[in-house]
This record gives sequence, structure tokens and C-alpha cells, in this order.
Amino acid sequence: MIEINEHFLALQNNYLFSEIAKRVKAYKTEQPDKKLISLGIGDVSLPLPQAVCRAMHAAVDDLSRKESFRGYGPEQGYDFLKEQIVEHDFASRGVTLDKSEIFINDGAKSDTGNITDILGRDLLVAVGDPVYPVYVDSNIMAGRKDSIIYLPCTAENNFVPALPGYRSELPESDPALPQGSPDLIYLCYPNNPTGTTLSKEELQVWVDYARRNHSLILFDAAYEAFIQHEEIPHSIYEMQGAKEVAIEFRSFSKTAGFTGLRCGYTVVPEELVVKTSGAKVQSLNQLWNRRQSTKFNGASYVSQRAAEAVYSPEGRQQVQDNIAYYMANARILRQGLLACGLKVYGGEDAPYLWVKTPDNFLSWEFFELLLQKAALVSTPGVGFGSCGEGYIRFSAFGERESCLEALGRIHQIL
Amino acid sequence: MIEINEHFLALQNNYLFSEIAKRVKAYKTEQPDKKLISLGIGDVSLPLPQAVCRAMHAAVDDLSRKESFRGYGPEQGYDFLKEQIVEHDFASRGVTLDKSEIFINDGAKSDTGNITDILGRDLLVAVGDPVYPVYVDSNIMAGRKDSIIYLPCTAENNFVPALPGYRSELPESDPALPQGSPDLIYLCYPNNPTGTTLSKEELQVWVDYARRNHSLILFDAAYEAFIQHEEIPHSIYEMQGAKEVAIEFRSFSKTAGFTGLRCGYTVVPEELVVKTSGAKVQSLNQLWNRRQSTKFNGASYVSQRAAEAVYSPEGRQQVQDNIAYYMANARILRQGLLACGLKVYGGEDAPYLWVKTPDNFLSWEFFELLLQKAALVSTPGVGFGSCGEGYIRFSAFGERESCLEALGRIHQIL
Repeated sequence: MIEINEHFLALQNNYLFSEIAKRVKAYKTEQPDKKLISLGIGDVSLPLPQAVCRAMHAAVDDLSRKESFRGYGPEQGYDFLKEQIVEHDFASRGVTLDKSEIFINDGAKSDTGNITDILGRDLLVAVGDPVYPVYVDSNIMAGRKDSIIYLPCTAENNFVPALPGYRSELPESDPALPQGSPDLIYLCYPNNPTGTTLSKEELQVWVDYARRNHSLILFDAAYEAFIQHEEIPHSIYEMQGAKEVAIEFRSFSKTAGFTGLRCGYTVVPEELVVKTSGAKVQSLNQLWNRRQSTKFNGASYVSQRAAEAVYSPEGRQQVQDNIAYYMANARILRQGLLACGLKVYGGEDAPYLWVKTPDNFLSWEFFELLLQKAALVSTPGVGFGSCGEGYIRFSAFGERESCLEALGRIHQIL
Repeated sequence: MIEINEHFLALQNNYLFSEIAKRVKAYKTEQPDKKLISLGIGDVSLPLPQAVCRAMHAAVDDLSRKESFRGYGPEQGYDFLKEQIVEHDFASRGVTLDKSEIFINDGAKSDTGNITDILGRDLLVAVGDPVYPVYVDSNIMAGRKDSIIYLPCTAENNFVPALPGYRSELPESDPALPQGSPDLIYLCYPNNPTGTTLSKEELQVWVDYARRNHSLILFDAAYEAFIQHEEIPHSIYEMQGAKEVAIEFRSFSKTAGFTGLRCGYTVVPEELVVKTSGAKVQSLNQLWNRRQSTKFNGASYVSQRAAEAVYSPEGRQQVQDNIAYYMANARILRQGLLACGLKVYGGEDAPYLWVKTPDNFLSWEFFELLLQKAALVSTPGVGFGSCGEGYIRFSAFGERESCLEALGRIHQIL
């Protein structure tokens, strides 16, 4: 008799963004004439850079002619793209990687969700709180609901999670939380949702911890392109010893507006090895390669050519211009919200602002206030975890005019 | 301490196509002047239909302009594509489906590999022998190596697998094989690798079996577009009661030459429900939706527009023309091989021919003979399972001239 994976039943039914969509829909029905502004979901609003579009037209032409047609590509991605990545994303920052350590994918969400396919079942997992829901939900689906350590990231600790494993640093309110040193650690910096960053020293602490504890770090760097301050690390491999303990996820989604195109990549260094129960040394690169060869068939050729164009001189300039536009939004929002008397975190090296609600409003209460009184959509911080309670997230990915209009409306109601 | 999923260590190290590539490379080094012909891997050779290319150019233009830009699409795919699928792939054959039952993906391989995410761990799995390796390898990765029932598909049973669960019908040579009635049944028709089909009556037998046994059928219909005989079913949902027991996988890869574009879809009917251990009725559609929303972010917008164009009047004609070209290859190969005195199966409603080796050659022996004496690349049948021993697979996806030239060379050496 067929049975389901009952771990799915442990998932929360209301996914954060579905709940928001439901409430927004209800508002629109009640107030059809109000002009809604969304500073909610983190999707880009600028069109694709022209260099990227030109490359895609050329790729389509390749596929339209017999002599240049390409069918199945390598599951791991084309060399033409991996070479650009190795040179521009890593060599330029002093990190040496081989093409074989890069796995092109159809977006970081797939790989951050699927990566634990190659890991053991009985893992203790550490995530930040607040956290990008995919890390948690994919582990719950794999039966690790009771093996997740939530590391508080709050204004009090400057959003730098304390090293786990010491009971005193975990929230006292919930003694049922699992303790111990985690086998698997998710770090996302610049952070979604808080928009905060780690310094090199702070990130090195985690690498050292992982080396000592034989833990694996899953480093999500989807927002690295938004870093403005030179001293902030873009890659975990800028840290000494990180290749022995970390897998890094990158994405063209936010960097270059590829949310609808689907292309990203995962770095699994050759140095990353694990001892098997038979005391053999097993390369994770080899395991991931096997996983991808079996369950994935490569990213679209057109998307890979698009991504290659991101690294052309023209493409790099256009991508920089788009990022500058969004980061100007972030600056304007930040200054405007501060001027309203709100406490604002993030938004300096990331496209997200993490805003403390005024008057001890709960996240959903403030969400509703902004929706009902200002026709403004935000993301309730509590949707990212209990430490997000009392915060909301604003995204800087909207249009300039919307950001300015949103500030005006907030100013009026506060 | 981080641990790996040790089930990966139970996988065969030499993936069939890597082993072929290795041998072909060695041959090329030894015989650099010989002109190799490949009738091996199942990749298309004709460029994309013009209607598809036009749609992709238009989609790129959409993404290049602010007013028509689209970011994240629905994880389940765009309605514009799902509507075409519902109408042309199903309604036209008397099958009523709702858009919500269609999940657009980045190719059938991903979903056939990932589908067991939503199923219980302790499943008895039935696959044909020979078999597309993804079904087996993805189950081994999930720890089901010793829970796989191989159903022989041989010339003796006309490549129609006997219903499992009766010891007498399983190969006697291996008493260690698991027995019993399977919870999960993979069926691929038209079949890869044998190129054979099931009649409606033969497929109905499997649906009835699954209903009686509360089994789930995973029906891979990636090659349905190649069916030439009107009476052969294209979809399992043409069978009575199939919606209660079957998930179907479709692909644009072979149908329309999308191997490099990455787009396919999975059908999970609303009627497909499973009782949980708590005796609740759980919809598999809902579970798969949750899985995809968490671990997938939709197929490329450009690929989805490309797929939509496959259903336009012009696109349908061009796709038909390409399929006619490949099926003419299949006919020519079939007739030529028969004329050489070989036994040939398949190739009438599928782009694959399953050829019995002459003189009791083993698969790899005949592969080597064809390679060394005729500079011809085939696929050894044994690579698809033990019942494939003594067969090789030829693909009809090459160019006409190559097929003719290949036949000439085979004629010379036999």
C-alpha cells in the first residue's frame, strides 16, 4: 500500500507569502479603488539588462539553426559560464576555484532545498532566527523537525548569531529546543530577511567552529552583489579554511534580475570531504555530482548564455546600474523610516530593511495597520521565525516612485 | 559531525553513458581519422521549430521592457501554458484535467527523480528490466536498494511485464530479489529503452492492479508524441480509474527538441489520495504542490513561452514534421537491420530500436564490435538492466544520412 512522507504533515500549512496574498486579496476586494504599494516580496522590478537580452536572442538563434543547435548540456553546466564565474566571482577576490567545483543550477532555491539529499538523516541543524523558510521546511520534509536549533538574531546581539552548543545562549522560554553542536549550519549573508551582514572576523569564527566540530556550513550568498562596503566578505571562501567546511550558493536572480529566467550556481570545493562509517574519505563534490547527474538535467542553454553575458564589460556595467538603483531605494527608505522615528536595521549592504514596529505592535498587527491605513504591503517579520516578532521586512526591489510614495503614507499614519 | 547519505555508496559507480563516453574517447584517440556515427544517446539533432524560436524572441523582448517584465512566476507554471496542455494533450483525447493538476517543471528527469520526496521511505518499488536508470538510482539514493522488484521485459513476454507478486514470474536466477506486491510502480510507455508499447488492454490491467493493491503508478509518457498507431494510449488517464492511482510525466524534450531548453510537466490528479497513518485522506496533489513551492521556483519564463508555441497551429505542424523525420529514421533503421538478418523490436511507435545481438554476443561485446569495426556508437542493452543483456539500443534521433551510412557499415561487418 502506498504511503506518504508523513513529515510533510509537520509543515505549517500557511506559507508566509500565501497568507500575505490572501490578506492583500481581501483588502483589494474591500477597497478596489485604493492604489496598493508592495514593499513585500523580494522580486525585482527592473527589466533585464540589454546585454543579457542580446545574449538570449543570440542563444535562441543558435538553437534555431542546425549547425549551432545544442541539445542536452552538461548536468553541471557549460564551461563558458563556469569560466566566467571562476574568474569574476572568485579569482577577482583572491579565491581560487576549479570549474569542476561549480554546479550551475536553475536557481538557488532548488539547490538549497535539495542539498541535504547527499547528507545523513540524523543531523542536528542550526539556522538563524529569523530565517529564509526554505532551510527549515526542506529539513522538516526530511524528518528533522525536532533536530533544528534556532539561533536568535536580534538587535541585542546585533543580528550576529552566537555559536550554538551553549544552553545559556539559546532562548530560555523553550526548554524543548534541541541542544548540542550542529552538524549542519545554514548561514545567509547578506541576510534575508534582516538585511544585515557579517564582518570577516565574525564569519571566520563560524568557519573555525565548523572545522573544530566537523560541521558543514551551507552559505547562502544570494545577495552578495548588493554589498557596498569593501570590507564585507562576498564569499565564505575568503575565510581561511572555509573550503574544507562550506558549500556556497549563488544566484543571478537578484544580482541580475533573473527571477523569471532561473539560473544560479552552487560551489562544492574538492577539499570538502567527509569520513564515511566505513572510515573512507568521501568527497561531497563527487556525491553532489552524482545527485545532479541523476535528478537534474542542466539549466536552460538560453539562461546560461544570459548568465554569461552578466560578466561581459557591458553586462557588468548594466547590472551595477540596476543594483545601484535598488540600493538607492534602500537608502531612501532607510533615511525616510529613520526620519519617521522608526528603528531600522539592514538596507546598507542588502536590499532588505528590517524595521522594528512602533509601540510594541506585533508583526501582523503592524502589517495590518500598514495595509488598512496606508494601502502598503510589507512582510511580517514573525513569518520568518519567532525572533522576527515585532519586526517587518521592507524590500528595496520596487520602483523609486513607490518607495517615495510609501514613505509619504507611512509618515502620515505614524 | 556531518555524515553523508551512505545510500549513495550503493550506487554503481560507472553510469552507463559515462562508460560509453570513456570508450568512445579511447577509440577516437586510437583512430583519429575514422568518422564516428552515433546512434547512442537519445538526444535530438534537428534545430528548434521556428514557431518556438519566434516565441522565445518575443519572450526575451517581454523581459527587456519594464512594462512587460516578469519576475518570479508561479512555482507550478504559468496558466498560459497549462491551458494549452489541458486542451491539446488531454481534452483532445477525452481526458478532462484541471489546470491545478498540471505542474510545469524544468524537464521530466527532475520530477521523476524527486517525486518520491512526498512518499514514505519503506516502499516496495517495481520497475521494468531493462529500465531508465533514473528510476532505480533515485530509489537507491533514498535507501530502497533492497526494495526494488525488477519486472523482466523480454522478447518472450513481448516486452509486456507480468504483474508482480507471483514468484514464478520473477527471474529464478536470483532468489534474493524482493517479492510481494509493489507500492510504487514505474511504467514508461512508449518504452525507453526497448521502444515497445502497451495496448489499452495491457495498460488497463496495470491500472486495475494498482487500484486493487493501493499501489501508485508513475507513468512516464515522455515519448508519447512518437506514437503512430491510433489505438496505442498516449496518456494513462485514457484508462478507466487511472486518476485514482497514477501520476504522469510528460516532456517537451523529445517531442519538440527541448533537451537544451528544459521544460516538461507532471500531472497529479486531484482524485489521487492516500490514507495517512492517522486515517486521514491526503491529496498527493497538495503534497507535491508543497514540495514544489519549497524546493523549486518554476521553469524559465522563456522556456514556458517556447512550450506554449508548441501548441500553436504552426508549432504543431513543425513539431509533427520533426517527429515524422525521426520516425522515418526509425523505419529505415528497422528495415535495414531486419534486412541484415537481425532481430529488431520497437521503433514503430517510439524513436528507439531494441536490437538482439547476433551470434549470442553480449551487449558490450557487440558494442565494441560496432565501435571497432564500424566506427558506430550504440547503447549496450545490459546498461539498462540484466534483461537487456544480449541487446543494444539504437536511437532514431540522428540525421538521415548517418542512419543510412550506419546501415551500410553494419551490412558490411555482419
